[in-house]
Amino acid sequence: MDRRAFNKLLGGLAAASAAPARLSAAPSRRIRRIATEEAFTIPGHVTAMRALAAGDSREPDLDFWRGLSGRNSFGEKLLPRLLDVEQIRLAEMDRNGIDMQLLSLTSPGVQMLAPSDAVAMATQANDVLRDIVSRHPTRFAGLATIAPQDVAASVKEMERARHSLGLSGFIINSHTNGEYLDDQKFWPLFEAAEALDGAIYLHPRAPSPAMAEPYRPHRLEAAIWGYQAETGLHALRMIMSGLFDRFPKLQIVLGHGGEGLPYWLTRIDRRHVARQAMVPTRLARLPSEYFKSNFTITTSGLFSPEVLKYCLTVLGPERVMFAIDYPYEEMDEAARFIEEMDIGEREQRLVLEENAMRLFHIAPA
Amino acid sequence: MDRRAFNKLLGGLAAASAAPARLSAAPSRRIRRIATEEAFTIPGHVTAMRALAAGDSREPDLDFWRGLSGRNSFGEKLLPRLLDVEQIRLAEMDRNGIDMQLLSLTSPGVQMLAPSDAVAMATQANDVLRDIVSRHPTRFAGLATIAPQDVAASVKEMERARHSLGLSGFIINSHTNGEYLDDQKFWPLFEAAEALDGAIYLHPRAPSPAMAEPYRPHRLEAAIWGYQAETGLHALRMIMSGLFDRFPKLQIVLGHGGEGLPYWLTRIDRRHVARQAMVPTRLARLPSEYFKSNFTITTSGLFSPEVLKYCLTVLGPERVMFAIDYPYEEMDEAARFIEEMDIGEREQRLVLEENAMRLFHIAPA
Repeated sequence: MDRRAFNKLLGGLAAASAAPARLSAAPSRRIRRIATEEAFTIPGHVTAMRALAAGDSREPDLDFWRGLSGRNSFGEKLLPRLLDVEQIRLAEMDRNGIDMQLLSLTSPGVQMLAPSDAVAMATQANDVLRDIVSRHPTRFAGLATIAPQDVAASVKEMERARHSLGLSGFIINSHTNGEYLDDQKFWPLFEAAEALDGAIYLHPRAPSPAMAEPYRPHRLEAAIWGYQAETGLHALRMIMSGLFDRFPKLQIVLGHGGEGLPYWLTRIDRRHVARQAMVPTRLARLPSEYFKSNFTITTSGLFSPEVLKYCLTVLGPERVMFAIDYPYEEMDEAARFIEEMDIGEREQRLVLEENAMRLFHIAPA
Repeated sequence: MDRRAFNKLLGGLAAASAAPARLSAAPSRRIRRIATEEAFTIPGHVTAMRALAAGDSREPDLDFWRGLSGRNSFGEKLLPRLLDVEQIRLAEMDRNGIDMQLLSLTSPGVQMLAPSDAVAMATQANDVLRDIVSRHPTRFAGLATIAPQDVAASVKEMERARHSLGLSGFIINSHTNGEYLDDQKFWPLFEAAEALDGAIYLHPRAPSPAMAEPYRPHRLEAAIWGYQAETGLHALRMIMSGLFDRFPKLQIVLGHGGEGLPYWLTRIDRRHVARQAMVPTRLARLPSEYFKSNFTITTSGLFSPEVLKYCLTVLGPERVMFAIDYPYEEMDEAARFIEEMDIGEREQRLVLEENAMRLFHIAPA
């Protein structure tokens, strides 16, 4: 038996034994588990990021790459798992009943590289992703990396990614050189995403240089706090800029429970209305209305049954998707989180499978 | 009938008519509604803040005082309500069945003034507060303003506030000149608070200068987003510094649904544990354990039944208190929020009355 056949068999066994009791009774078809924020990298990307990290830049994102270079459990565990897709990862997916991963180049993608290097690296990473997806079309899908520092080239790469490479959508890792996507110079990216029916996953990176300093004590600039502070602000800036009035079909995905925004919708709306006299905006709708129609959130890195329930209540089950954040989070913990979801079967079906299928053009099983 | 007697009568009538049906049946005693984050100011404070606002500082907090000076609905509505306590406010409380307000000098308190001015202004504001509370001991309690820019003088003022003025606790408005309370030079304030059994309300102000820039577009530095970004970071810095191992009885209060921290506890713990190899800390417990034993959150400015339920579930009903954020929020909306709370009677009793009584030394009715 070759490795693929073995993996398939193992996957079937794991999936069968992992299916929760309450699901095995009623439904005619097992719910697939599609994880939608799963990181990988390629050797060229690691080399480029390590070269940046060897310099004297104080950008907090580089601390991560310095850590990755070290001989510690962080570097020894994460780096092999980021570079691997078809060995360690598929076996872990099989063991934990994860049917499919939507892959994306790990943060900060190519956004810290010089523009021409960034465009070339994005092309290379997207080609690798196409190859992986071609070899395992039922196990992997992919989000195309783009380089917002070259908008025109990125628009071309977005077209290539959707039309030629068969990729599912796009990923942008928050700010690019301290600039945010509410700046109209970036809006051709949204025009392209809308035209190509490709959602953009707005993935975190550490706070931009103009806000990073107060996060440095206790190293709070990383995933423990700074990631959401950076990305939640970014998403709100996008909403308040009016770009969703201009591109009403644009779909943005936010990981980590929507980077905190779902918790704040009542206050954001109330403050927005209360300050119209002081801060007039041209928004056609309330901020929360854009959030509920132009955003989908995922469970990456936030395996809390209470947060999940809260989000299902305030956003509705069509706006919440399963994600792990592999390899930064463990698949077995994600699988346990699924087992402990105390939600209805329709909600499980939407969260684990159908929302991802619809948003990312994933074929039926 | 004089004004006080009239107000008392009106208050009784309003309270009786406002009591929700589900409460009037069972309990022997009506639940008091104690609102715990209610702002006031004094003329000298307005003059001092306006003088700062007339200068060329770009501190985002000053935009608020520039707005207050203008002839617009913001300035015309807020300023009279901040300066008033016994006229407009008491009548509004009576109309809306709010029994008691815990008053505090509005943000940023005295924290932007020169140290000696700040100490003098805090003394003056606390004296005014003592007079208000003395005149209306069943309607008002107060938190003492302190000036963290002079730690030694603040410790003396904290002792005076608790021992001589009969105030309930203390308020600090996030950063002071860009410095945060995890810096050990501020820790005598926590030693005093613990010894005096006085909780510290960590109230928001706009992001500190070293992180303010990315919040300026769309004016996101204010209550719509920046307040919680600043204050949530501040609270997490306090937790990660280990100060709650040093002062285990210290009690901190966070408004606005705990400034977002309750949403993130699962992720904070997980990331804290995962990165121990990279970022060793000396914390004796998990971050969430400090949050659940050293913090109480309030509903100020976030009248969401879903957020309330979420917080009751993850923190427990002893850790959630009612607050309005008057005059920035409307009392009638707060009263409606209370009516729509779909929680048990025990939870209502704790949230609306008993947690505040215990934490802030408020006498039984």
